[in-house]
Amino acid sequence: MTVARDHGGGLDAAIARYGGSRASWLDLSTGINPIPYPLPQFAADAWTALPDKAAFARLHDLARGFWGVPAGAGIVAATGASAIIAALPRVFPQGEVCIPGPTYNEHEAAFRAAGWTIGKVPRQALVAVHPNNPDGAVWSAPDFTTPITIIDESFCDVMPERSLIHLASRPNTVILKSFGKFWGLAGLRLGFAVGDPAVIARLADILGPWQVSGPALNIGAEALADPQWADATRARLTRDAGRLDRLLTAKGAAFLGGTSLFRLYRVDDATRWQDRLAQGHVWSRVFPYAHDWLRLGLPAPDRWAQLEAAL
Amino acid sequence: MTVARDHGGGLDAAIARYGGSRASWLDLSTGINPIPYPLPQFAADAWTALPDKAAFARLHDLARGFWGVPAGAGIVAATGASAIIAALPRVFPQGEVCIPGPTYNEHEAAFRAAGWTIGKVPRQALVAVHPNNPDGAVWSAPDFTTPITIIDESFCDVMPERSLIHLASRPNTVILKSFGKFWGLAGLRLGFAVGDPAVIARLADILGPWQVSGPALNIGAEALADPQWADATRARLTRDAGRLDRLLTAKGAAFLGGTSLFRLYRVDDATRWQDRLAQGHVWSRVFPYAHDWLRLGLPAPDRWAQLEAAL
Repeated sequence: MTVARDHGGGLDAAIARYGGSRASWLDLSTGINPIPYPLPQFAADAWTALPDKAAFARLHDLARGFWGVPAGAGIVAATGASAIIAALPRVFPQGEVCIPGPTYNEHEAAFRAAGWTIGKVPRQALVAVHPNNPDGAVWSAPDFTTPITIIDESFCDVMPERSLIHLASRPNTVILKSFGKFWGLAGLRLGFAVGDPAVIARLADILGPWQVSGPALNIGAEALADPQWADATRARLTRDAGRLDRLLTAKGAAFLGGTSLFRLYRVDDATRWQDRLAQGHVWSRVFPYAHDWLRLGLPAPDRWAQLEAAL
Repeated sequence: MTVARDHGGGLDAAIARYGGSRASWLDLSTGINPIPYPLPQFAADAWTALPDKAAFARLHDLARGFWGVPAGAGIVAATGASAIIAALPRVFPQGEVCIPGPTYNEHEAAFRAAGWTIGKVPRQALVAVHPNNPDGAVWSAPDFTTPITIIDESFCDVMPERSLIHLASRPNTVILKSFGKFWGLAGLRLGFAVGDPAVIARLADILGPWQVSGPALNIGAEALADPQWADATRARLTRDAGRLDRLLTAKGAAFLGGTSLFRLYRVDDATRWQDRLAQGHVWSRVFPYAHDWLRLGLPAPDRWAQLEAAL
């Protein structure tokens, strides 16, 4: 089952081991923007009424505008990119998929659960996380030559100029967008699949109608109509990522890659670093496959002192 | 695609045809409790943080207690019963399913989209909506003899004494629960599948992790820990359903069935009734397969006068 896989988060387990309360901990184990999009006012019937087709159409239209979706592509909103990742392998006939890694591990888990074989080279289907998590590696259009292409742009809103959204009208191509990370509202559960309209239609059938809550429809629409907030956020994240790099490299870590939402460092012994940070109630991300990789998200503006003290 | 099917709702289309605003309309086209569970306070990080495993475990435990789930059964929460309905046909190998109707049409649509054949008699798999929508017919344990059993109890919380939840530990059996209708929070998107643990595990893989928003985890947990509210709500719904019956039968409609969340009446010409009610900005539900069936939900306490005037 999906719940057993290794992920960031797990703050509850850290609290159980090191003490403290949720409020005392600085959780840098994810790549979620620590300054979320400010919650707009919305009508009370967002909670009570079954979301209307018109509200979905409006959200889809704003998403098309925000991301510059090509006219020939379809789009569907879902309860997080995670719901799309889980459903996507069932949209195509079972086969062999290549998922260059290390990368976000839900893709491979979803394809395996759906009976696919994982291949070493791209032949039939390719999943590219762009930019990649955790190392920030980026992809380009010529990289995609397989009959089936899935591009996970969950972290691409910090670098919209690199987006491969123009590929979304290609046959058997799907591009994923996440609302939780860049807009800092992971609890809201909102993500999008954009791509080949026939594929998006099959995906919508697996997801079912009314995937998105009334509050998420309202908040998502406001945010996707607000490019000024997005611009200002990109600038701030870039500044803060630089500040984090200076702090970590001064302590002996070497910058390996990442995006302005999360930074990957090479350290001597990541588990020891994680333990030291946890003594100061800062939670970080280590990787079972690389003992010297440490990933950190950005602290909120008022929490840098806690990170500095823990280091 | 799912969005094209006939459903209640469609208030936007009614407004476009008959005029008025959303606030001026009384929408009785669904079976949603008009007095929702009062929204509890919850922490701001319900919107921002990725929902924690502990929050899911707590919600699942409270759901087990509220519905009296047998110990051997599994449970998974999803973004509405609709997400479970859409995914369920893919949990089993394709075959033939019997869905006695007329009933809620998403079940058949989901099985067809997944490549199943729809059969007239229960042989391999049976889907029972209990109580049935729109006629309120109920099922009993001896009715279930097929290898695969799906019981949709989306409207059963008004009659918990009739629940078939004790069947949930049978092999290849799944029981659906909906949060939107009885608790009146359809925009929240919360539903549950309870049943054979192996089947629930495969379902969870298709749904993916973090299906439920942070607010829904909080609000759902509060509500499922509040049997007093549920008891008082059942009593009020029963009273109001009686009041609706008296009103409608006095106007020449005959009571056919339903639950205390929606009432089905036989009228001479349902389309004419719908039109007359719509002139007074009351929206009702008619059925393409029965020209003399009219379904009405319950008005909120302050909106009965509008219904009486429209009748």
